[in-house]
Amino acid sequence: MSNGDEAQSNDPDNVEEWIHSADPVVIAAEIAHAPAPVRSALLNALDEVRTLAVFNILEPAIQAQMLDDMSSDEALALFEALGPDDRARLVEALPAEAAGNLLGLLSHDKRTSTALLLDYPPETAGRIMSPHFVMLRADMTVSQALAAVRRDGADAETIYYLPMVDDDMCFQGAIGLHDLVMAEMSDRIADIREPETGRFPVNADQEVVARYMADADLLAIAVVEQGDRLVGIITVDDAMDVLRFEESEDMARTGAVAHLGQPYFSVSVFKLVRSRVVWLSLLAVAAVLTVNVLAAFESTIEQVVALTLFIPLLIGIGGNTGAQSATTIVRAMAMDDVRTSDFLRVALRESSVGLQMGTALAGLAYLIVWSVFSSKIAAVVALTLIAVCTLAALVGSLMPLLARSIGVDPAVISAPLVTTIVDATGLMIYFLIAIAVLGL
Amino acid sequence: MSNGDEAQSNDPDNVEEWIHSADPVVIAAEIAHAPAPVRSALLNALDEVRTLAVFNILEPAIQAQMLDDMSSDEALALFEALGPDDRARLVEALPAEAAGNLLGLLSHDKRTSTALLLDYPPETAGRIMSPHFVMLRADMTVSQALAAVRRDGADAETIYYLPMVDDDMCFQGAIGLHDLVMAEMSDRIADIREPETGRFPVNADQEVVARYMADADLLAIAVVEQGDRLVGIITVDDAMDVLRFEESEDMARTGAVAHLGQPYFSVSVFKLVRSRVVWLSLLAVAAVLTVNVLAAFESTIEQVVALTLFIPLLIGIGGNTGAQSATTIVRAMAMDDVRTSDFLRVALRESSVGLQMGTALAGLAYLIVWSVFSSKIAAVVALTLIAVCTLAALVGSLMPLLARSIGVDPAVISAPLVTTIVDATGLMIYFLIAIAVLGL
Repeated sequence: MSNGDEAQSNDPDNVEEWIHSADPVVIAAEIAHAPAPVRSALLNALDEVRTLAVFNILEPAIQAQMLDDMSSDEALALFEALGPDDRARLVEALPAEAAGNLLGLLSHDKRTSTALLLDYPPETAGRIMSPHFVMLRADMTVSQALAAVRRDGADAETIYYLPMVDDDMCFQGAIGLHDLVMAEMSDRIADIREPETGRFPVNADQEVVARYMADADLLAIAVVEQGDRLVGIITVDDAMDVLRFEESEDMARTGAVAHLGQPYFSVSVFKLVRSRVVWLSLLAVAAVLTVNVLAAFESTIEQVVALTLFIPLLIGIGGNTGAQSATTIVRAMAMDDVRTSDFLRVALRESSVGLQMGTALAGLAYLIVWSVFSSKIAAVVALTLIAVCTLAALVGSLMPLLARSIGVDPAVISAPLVTTIVDATGLMIYFLIAIAVLGL
Repeated sequence: MSNGDEAQSNDPDNVEEWIHSADPVVIAAEIAHAPAPVRSALLNALDEVRTLAVFNILEPAIQAQMLDDMSSDEALALFEALGPDDRARLVEALPAEAAGNLLGLLSHDKRTSTALLLDYPPETAGRIMSPHFVMLRADMTVSQALAAVRRDGADAETIYYLPMVDDDMCFQGAIGLHDLVMAEMSDRIADIREPETGRFPVNADQEVVARYMADADLLAIAVVEQGDRLVGIITVDDAMDVLRFEESEDMARTGAVAHLGQPYFSVSVFKLVRSRVVWLSLLAVAAVLTVNVLAAFESTIEQVVALTLFIPLLIGIGGNTGAQSATTIVRAMAMDDVRTSDFLRVALRESSVGLQMGTALAGLAYLIVWSVFSSKIAAVVALTLIAVCTLAALVGSLMPLLARSIGVDPAVISAPLVTTIVDATGLMIYFLIAIAVLGL
């Protein structure tokens, strides 16, 4: 199997051969990674069925760019063939005008089902659900249910998850195709349905739904409007996409960049700058504090210039310690291992971790600095390390908790942010210790 | 629905009521988060079916801790009820002695199937697969196939994915239960099977398999030994667990900490220290370079002490710029948007991003520094910002690519590592510019 292999050759004959036998996932990866002209050529070389399979795998941002390069007939054919949930995601990625044109050309049914999803706010359950599912009634027998599946299944997003409704479209639980196949034909499905079946309101956060599905190992889940009225289902493939999107977003925030939400090379340099410059400027403004702190201790520096030599080292180690704590806690919060109510427990654990690491480094630093400079300077550096590491671990771990408690995503507590905050306080500690120890 | 809600009360009656009606996912989250005595109490309050459901949802590290607190009968009952893949994951998390005891008490069949998986190296397809699946033969009719599913399905990990084999157990493709249910009873399954069906060798990297399944929207995939002999299947729930594990690992590396692989509070402070102290020490050793750079320019500092004031600001901004680039590229590489062959493209884009951001900040910095200090110092700071931002973006983006090309996970190129490396070079640039502009 050639998963992950790259197209091995630029020889056109080999490419021709490759594209007819290669896995759609691999072709999609090549297309995503290729410049625009190569993309169209690759897609054109595929037969109709495989074109759809490959197009389906591509990310919405890439799909949008490719539609832009096609005739409107070709674009419409691909746009039409998508499921309503995938189509809604593509619409989000398209320029408004192109999206409007394509939606206008859809059949009435397809336009309606797509518009339904687009009416819900982004990143909610309603936006990512599919309105196409097989509906059963609780009073059906297994044999009647199987007949309904065979009749309506072709248009459904999945037939592995089968919701039941009453006359008012109220959700009555769900049953798996697994249970239908394993049961006796004459069983009533009400008797074999799952004892507990989760559902989510249309306005539920997509990440909450996806995490729930991952935890509960579900292949699909019901989405309901007010009064428990069933309007759609979310399938596991969409849940996986959501989890990957949210992880990318967290990862981006951790590095103090805005989430691009699309492949790296499909983003212009201008957009890359825009995704970073706001955070970088904010951090730069915060860093001006360090200038003020140093200015306040300028006379101390003039007396003992050697103190300057350790500034980057000390604030660097402090920043790294803080970044380590922040990374650990942000991730633990994302996994729900740590909650805001754990404030005190976290503070105790992390300051203890910082103290231990600071003490270990201080011992080493004392010996080295003492051998090159003086025992007094060595003492200043060692004491500063202990204080700064303890403080940094504390600050790095508590900032994500504070962020959450004021309603901000803990992931914005990035390593750069923690570093910048620890820098100024670290400098202050350093010079205060220096003044005390050196008697300045 | 009460997803995500926490147990609202400490009143025992309410807890009793809550535990009988709450969602197993929510109960599992509470258990994972509770101290050891509460855990056992919560689990004991559940009936047998729900106990299994909740235990299944818990992470292996928590499962292992709970088994440790139980009588061996209770532990064995839960251990036996797990699927072979989940049991293998739990064995990894258990102390060797406890694992050996429990494995020894299993029935012969269950012990064999668990041992089979444990024979494959960790993080491979063989380790996470299930050896229990329904096997079909390509010459069966749909009706024969459905009969086989009903006969063998109860013990299978899933019946939604049905692999076909020949007399030598050679993998012959697969069919979905969906296709069986929608087809005519007299159809031959060879005629309706999927045109392309992926498979992975037992030693394939679990992350590659999981990403493939996510890209291709698969519910399961075949795992084969040499000669295409079918030995197991991997289901989508395991793929999701793998993706979440790998994301956590990447995230940890990004913050320069070793991946804990288990919930935060289940790890001792000593283990937390151990997961960070190696990286912190390495970074500290690298940071000693900054002391050497500053020592080399000590006479420059003595002449213009004001230069000292901007040291943390300049290296801070440089570090942040580098961290932003590294975060973006590491993630893009994890998503296969960027490959090592893109070295030059990435270098051009990122240095251009760095140059633009550096220039913007330099303009601002020049005005501010000029108004407080002198135009010459302002020029030094502004020029340094342009140079350092460009360099940092370049270094931050190319280091992950270099790491991959020498076979190291790009995610180890953490923000702290980039910051530390940019610090020393940034200082050198700063003082060289200062000497040139100020004519020292």
